[in-house]
Amino acid sequence: MVEGKNRQIVLVSRPQGEPTPGNFKLTEAPIPAIGTRQVLLKTKYLSLDPYMRGRMSEAKSYVPPFVIGEPLGGGTVSEVVASHNPKFAVGDIVLAFGGWQDYAVSDGNGLRKLDPNIAPVTAALGVLGMPGLTAYTGLLNIGQPKPGETLAVAAAAGPVGSAVGQIAKIKGCRVVGIAGGQKKVDYLTGELGFDAAADHRSPRLKEELRAVCPNGIDIYFENVGGAVWDAVFPLLNNFARVPVCGLVANYNATSLPEGPDRSMALMRSILTKRLRVQGFIVYDFAQQTEDFLRDAGAWIREGKLKYREDIVEGLENAPQAFIGLLKGANFGKLLVKVSD
Amino acid sequence: MVEGKNRQIVLVSRPQGEPTPGNFKLTEAPIPAIGTRQVLLKTKYLSLDPYMRGRMSEAKSYVPPFVIGEPLGGGTVSEVVASHNPKFAVGDIVLAFGGWQDYAVSDGNGLRKLDPNIAPVTAALGVLGMPGLTAYTGLLNIGQPKPGETLAVAAAAGPVGSAVGQIAKIKGCRVVGIAGGQKKVDYLTGELGFDAAADHRSPRLKEELRAVCPNGIDIYFENVGGAVWDAVFPLLNNFARVPVCGLVANYNATSLPEGPDRSMALMRSILTKRLRVQGFIVYDFAQQTEDFLRDAGAWIREGKLKYREDIVEGLENAPQAFIGLLKGANFGKLLVKVSD
Repeated sequence: MVEGKNRQIVLVSRPQGEPTPGNFKLTEAPIPAIGTRQVLLKTKYLSLDPYMRGRMSEAKSYVPPFVIGEPLGGGTVSEVVASHNPKFAVGDIVLAFGGWQDYAVSDGNGLRKLDPNIAPVTAALGVLGMPGLTAYTGLLNIGQPKPGETLAVAAAAGPVGSAVGQIAKIKGCRVVGIAGGQKKVDYLTGELGFDAAADHRSPRLKEELRAVCPNGIDIYFENVGGAVWDAVFPLLNNFARVPVCGLVANYNATSLPEGPDRSMALMRSILTKRLRVQGFIVYDFAQQTEDFLRDAGAWIREGKLKYREDIVEGLENAPQAFIGLLKGANFGKLLVKVSD
Repeated sequence: MVEGKNRQIVLVSRPQGEPTPGNFKLTEAPIPAIGTRQVLLKTKYLSLDPYMRGRMSEAKSYVPPFVIGEPLGGGTVSEVVASHNPKFAVGDIVLAFGGWQDYAVSDGNGLRKLDPNIAPVTAALGVLGMPGLTAYTGLLNIGQPKPGETLAVAAAAGPVGSAVGQIAKIKGCRVVGIAGGQKKVDYLTGELGFDAAADHRSPRLKEELRAVCPNGIDIYFENVGGAVWDAVFPLLNNFARVPVCGLVANYNATSLPEGPDRSMALMRSILTKRLRVQGFIVYDFAQQTEDFLRDAGAWIREGKLKYREDIVEGLENAPQAFIGLLKGANFGKLLVKVSD
């Protein structure tokens, strides 16, 4: 038995629109005992990701909703602190789905051991994890980048967007990033080597984006929706591809926006421009994980694929950090450091 | 010189909404003389197709608008009645783009000789022509039918829809057709062997379509839009493909429909259901014409690909026939017999 308490962040009510601190509650539970073949995991880092907003609602989606009164789920880097499973030893660092809590129990299924000598363990939650695989598979399978084409990506300073842009550069594209604020814009064209960037907070986003996309847009990696989509849409070239992996700008919407209804206008543009608009979830391409880890690992070593982390200290600060994530307050992959 | 007059249907004004007879005018011009390497074509059959509505407007689309005061364009089966081109002899029957008139001049480019011994020449405007190629390429390249999947197609008694459904049957799909009126519905499940059909004029279309699609819809071949799309959309399965080749129900729209704005709801479904929604124009797949003619020819001979024509007599009746086409008044590929 491990001594102490298990702090947990519990969902106490479903957010109506933007989540508020009142939707969450920090509680304490006993540290669970483990049974046959189980391991006890101590959370080191918790990943906060936009998809979690969807799970806080009851609406049908590609993952089931979080349960009221239960700790929220989430990817973690965890340490094995007790083990009845021969495959895992105390001290192993693993990629897990430990959730918003100090301790979790696992039967070992779905755990992946991490070697800190190969890459910092937190990368398994970002550039070498779900966000990186999302970028890699969506871009290559649906975006199908060709040298000389123009790719635009929103939330471009985030873990998915920054990987999309850099992989598109590797594939020979001209890359335009869209992000919120001058600091992020500078990061895109500086550190990450994007060809251009636009600030989605600018009231002249449409004009500014048009100015930096003189040849239109051949691939738009859609993870935002909203006003950014409105600015991108008129710039899409014939035969453009639009992988859709997220619509963060809309996650807090409580009702459909006012009219007119532009859905048939969207369909008409899909027709006349011969667009390919295709949704995907990272798990759809799980079988490409090995290719991804091989390629991304090499690109990181070669300095072609950089990443940035935004680490918040303390489990108790997870709700506020998550609320900020949906507004773009983070700068880089958002992680909560739960324990040393 | 050929004696007589060249009757022409001229576009005198652009339709606002639904076209009216007043948008068209029958005029007479001299029969044109032909120059070096030119041929004079006498129209036997004129094809009337929904895409023509788009060309009557000024809005930017994938083909340039028709010109006010000029005869309307359109595909024809024509006879060579004079020739200065060694490739074509008087009496040849050709597939041409002669337009809404008795006579047209061509330099021979784009003409295709038709052999009435292989297939009735009118088939070159329908099942073996542009509509057939649209069905074949959109279904196979974007729809990607797999045995056991459910395909739904609207305007299913028309030349594109009927070919889509029959080719999907050949590929092993369960096929559900949507058409207007009991006669067409009966034709789909009877003559064409569709598994089920629904009447889009029914006030209970949503429920009726749901009832005949117990396993949802894996492929929706979109050529209609509007209320049919609204009925189909909730039935789309995860990973459904939606080739978009037309939106006839919206062609006469003069403004966007009232709100709420459902465009982001559409994007959200594309994401959560991982839909592939892709527009195409038949010319995008022109390089597959040979494959198409080989396959479709064989299927027609084997009785697996049937077609139906709706032939209106007289060039002067073309405007009224076209106005009816947009309302689904025709039953089968709409042709105007211009001369014997």
